[in-house]
Parts: sequence; C-alpha cells; structure tokens
Amino acid sequence: MKLDEISRPIESELARFREEFKQTMTSEVGLIDKVAGYILRQKGKQARPMLVLLSANIAGGINDSTYRAAALVELLHTATLIHDDVVDTADMRRGLPAINALWKNKVAVLMGDYLLSRGLLLALKHKDHRFLEIISDAVKRMSEGELLQIEKTRSLDIDEATYFKIISDKTASLISTSCEIGAVSASSDSDVQQKLRACGEAIGIAFQIQDDILDYLGKSSKTGKPVGGDIKEKKITLPLIYALENADAQKRKEVIALLKSDKKRTLFSEEIILFATEHGGIEYAEHTAKKFVQKALDALSSFPASPSKAALELFINFAVSRQT
Amino acid sequence: MKLDEISRPIESELARFREEFKQTMTSEVGLIDKVAGYILRQKGKQARPMLVLLSANIAGGINDSTYRAAALVELLHTATLIHDDVVDTADMRRGLPAINALWKNKVAVLMGDYLLSRGLLLALKHKDHRFLEIISDAVKRMSEGELLQIEKTRSLDIDEATYFKIISDKTASLISTSCEIGAVSASSDSDVQQKLRACGEAIGIAFQIQDDILDYLGKSSKTGKPVGGDIKEKKITLPLIYALENADAQKRKEVIALLKSDKKRTLFSEEIILFATEHGGIEYAEHTAKKFVQKALDALSSFPASPSKAALELFINFAVSRQT
Repeated sequence: MKLDEISRPIESELARFREEFKQTMTSEVGLIDKVAGYILRQKGKQARPMLVLLSANIAGGINDSTYRAAALVELLHTATLIHDDVVDTADMRRGLPAINALWKNKVAVLMGDYLLSRGLLLALKHKDHRFLEIISDAVKRMSEGELLQIEKTRSLDIDEATYFKIISDKTASLISTSCEIGAVSASSDSDVQQKLRACGEAIGIAFQIQDDILDYLGKSSKTGKPVGGDIKEKKITLPLIYALENADAQKRKEVIALLKSDKKRTLFSEEIILFATEHGGIEYAEHTAKKFVQKALDALSSFPASPSKAALELFINFAVSRQT
Repeated sequence: MKLDEISRPIESELARFREEFKQTMTSEVGLIDKVAGYILRQKGKQARPMLVLLSANIAGGINDSTYRAAALVELLHTATLIHDDVVDTADMRRGLPAINALWKNKVAVLMGDYLLSRGLLLALKHKDHRFLEIISDAVKRMSEGELLQIEKTRSLDIDEATYFKIISDKTASLISTSCEIGAVSASSDSDVQQKLRACGEAIGIAFQIQDDILDYLGKSSKTGKPVGGDIKEKKITLPLIYALENADAQKRKEVIALLKSDKKRTLFSEEIILFATEHGGIEYAEHTAKKFVQKALDALSSFPASPSKAALELFINFAVSRQT
C-alpha cells in the first residue's frame, strides 16, 4: 500500500491526530463507547486527515488548530460512512460488519448524529468558525450530490455535465474541504487556500472516476465491493455515459431498454460492461481521470518543493493508480 | 386544539417565521424541493418555534435574530423527525406517509443531513455562534439519550434515575433549547436565559411523561400511534418502573420473565398495562408530570405578567392535559 509512503513526512503528526481523534469519541454512555471503539478498530486509511496535515504543511506549517481541523473532517467522514451504510443497507465496511448490521439502523443513525454534534462542539469551543463554514458547506454539497444522483438515476437521464456535478458534490467536496481546511489552519493567504482547495477538488473528481472505472474492471476481492454493483443499481457513470453518447442510435435504444428492463441482474451488468468497453467508455474515463490528476498537480506547482508537497503529489497519482 | 389559543399573542410573528423557514429549505436539486415541499405540507404543530418566540417576548422582545433561532430549532427538529422515522421504520408521520416510506431510507437520511447543513450555514452566516453552541449541545444530548435508552432497553435494567436521564436528554433537551435560544436572542441577562432554559427543561420532562402515560391509556386513533407500542418494544417507562418497584418480589419476577419472553405481543402488552395500572404506576406518573408542570410555572414566576407569559403558562398546562 502506497499510503504508508505518502504519510512518511507526517508520521508523528498523524500519531498525535489519532490520539486526539480518539478523545473526541469518548462518552459516558456505554453503548456509545462500545460503538466508538468498534469504529476506531475499523479505522480506514485516514486519507482525509493526511490531506489536512499535508496541506497545512504546504501552506505554512501544522499547528494546534490543524489537529482540530483534521479531527473535524474525520468525524464528519465517519458520520457520513455510518449514515451511508444505513442508506446502502451495506452489511460490510472495510472487511468488518457495518455498524448498522451489528447494531441495527437506529444505533447507526444516532451514532452518526452524535459524532456530528461532537465535531460541532469541538469547533465552537475553539471558535473555529471558519472551519465550521467549510465543513457545513461540504455536508450540504454531499447530501445535494447524493440526492441529485438518486433523482437522475430514477429517470435514467444523465449527461456528462450532470455526472460531474454529482461526483464533485458527493465525493470531491470532502476531499477539497480537507485540503482547504488544512490550508486555512496554517495560512490566512486566500490565494494559498484557494490553490489547495482546487487541488483537493481535482483529486476528488479523479478519485471518483477511478472508483467508477473499478466498478467496471475491478476484482471484487480487491475493492471489497462486487464488480458491477453500480450498474445493478442503475447508476450511470462516466464509462457508460460516454459509450451511450458514441453508440449508434439503434444500439443506444437497445441499451436504454436493457437498463429499464428487469432482466436478470448479473447477466445484465455483464452486457453493460461489454457495451461500455467496446464503445471506448473505459478508455475515455481513464483519460479524463488523468486530466484531473494533471489539474491537481498544476494547482500545486507554485509551492516550493518540500517532503509534504512530494507526498501530496504521490497521493494525487495514487488516486488513479489504485486498483482498490 | 388549544395550541391556537397559545399562539394568539404571536400570530403575525409565527406567520413571518413560517415564511423564513420555507426559504431555508429551497434547493436547486428538484428532489430536495419536492421532499421539502412535502415536509412543509406535513407541518406539525410548530410547538418549538412557538416556544422560541414566546420566550423571546418574555425575555425582552422578539427581534430579527429570534426568527433565525426559531428556524434553526425547527430545522433540527425536522431533521430529527426524518431520521427518527428511518430509525423507527415508521410508515406514517402526522397522518401522512413518512418520508422514508415514500422515498426510501436513503433519501430520508440524506434529507436530514441536508437540513442540518442548511441550519448550520444560516447560523454561521449571521455569526449566531451562541445559538450553534446551544443547538449542538441539544443534538449531542438527544443522540446520547436515545442511545442510552437502547442500551438500557436491551438489558431491561432501568430505574427512575436512568429514566429521567433518558427523557431529559432525548426529549427535554430540544424543548429546553427552544426556550433558552429564544431568551438568548432577546436578552443577554444570564439569569433570564437560565430561568427560561429551566422552564423548558421541566416542560419537556412533563411532556415526555405524559407521552409515556398515553402509551398506556391513549386511543390509537387520537395519538396516531398504537397503544402499548413502547411496551411491545420493551421500552420501560415511568408507569412500569414504579409498578415494578412497588410489586412484591414474586410478581416482579413474573413480570420481568414476561418482558424477557417472546410471548405473543398484543396479549403481552395488555398484561403489562394491567399490571402497571393495578400497582399505581399510572397514578404515580400523572402525579410526577404535575410536579414538573409546577416546576415550569415556578421558573416563570419572577417575570411580569404579559400576553406571552400567559400563553406560555397555557402551553405548560397543555403538556399534561393533552390526550394526543
């Protein structure tokens, strides 16, 4: 896993972050502590706190408020994952049973709300009002993006512009927030803040396109998600959008009919994958993801070379090179 | 409905609130507007905005920030109701299908998150940081209270002290918040703020005890909830706690065994209702609710007479006189 390499310049800071993050999740209520302990054991890649710390270093240097910014982002991300699991009725998360599968939806929704409130209180206590603005805007964009996707999935009416609106709101918003909030914690220069925000936004878009490509190509054992999962849910992503736009009218009609039908799901997704591949959809999506990688790298170009900048550049490339 | 009488002194202010509240729910995403419109049509009693407005009047007078405070409370309350419906897998809310029943859990969870973010952004935009502190603390208490109840329901281990901790966190917190935030919007006198907060806390506790009594006595057609619903979920509330404490050892053992059994649910709740009634549980709960009504009235005693104070006193009495 490349992430180890990426986190090298901020190893000790990441350790301090983990300690502070753990503190924000304690409670007098036994059940909360139990679920929180479980969440901490499940702990993911902590990519977002890494982005906060790296961006802060690039912008001027990590300080006390950077750790709170990182905790805020990770609390929000964790709350979102827990709510997502309810929403997707997922049974597994990072190879372990999901909170909602172990404790039922009720506990999952409440635990998500609890974590959000802890994040808010932490920020308010330290008068981190600017952090809160950035974070609240991310919550708004994330829910808007997901709801737009649901609306569009239902009508099977989705073009490239809508696709980019959805993925930038639902996925790129929090990655962009991570970079921006790190920059804000370390510098009051709005140009610096804006560059790192733009870098994060481009990373997020590249990351989601790669996710959508992996739904067409990935092996289930690697991603932990079944291949073709999105297709079965009739989520139309970039490979398919491109293929539909570039197929002849007759073929397009057939595929749309197939999407609308209730044909046996497995067979169905195999046909769609084949169609998207044959019509250059995968290739186009890979090409587009690389364009956003370049955009992210360009946003960093004016910052002087440093171990943190080099690590962030590694991260940017990782967004599209990853196979899981 | 007595609430009409209560709202009389703030009729025009309530109308302005409704207009501002509607504005906070608009979105460019069609699905959000659709769900928001549905929520607005479902609109409940708006008891909490009323409390905000009345408390502000009592504390010194409604001003622009009071409307934002009321919108904030109602956004949070609405988000909580939507999440509650997911959590309780409720199909109906105020006589109409619940959001999650019409649009599935996914939309309900996301819509709740969206409303929370709108509330946050509204408050941050106006630098209402004290409002946010009060509201965030309420979210924390509400989720803690619910999670504590789940923990205790599972173990059937609940005494009076735990019961009061649960209902004050899960229910009284937001009612107390409504009164406090109204007061804070209108007065910087911490004594005034504290008295209205205490008044709201006592109202909330009386309100929840009455709710729990109605689960034993109410007619399903009035409350819109089935009688004995809590009992079927093995939620142990005040009537039963008192009865268990005052039954002889043998009878207590039998009832606990009954609670632990998987006996046919309907029969089961009838037996529990009979047991609680015969052992004075209902009577005790009614007596206790009245004590909190008195506490709420006492908290107001030092404020001069006014139409808003009289209306709030009506509200306090309504908390226990209501049959739905």
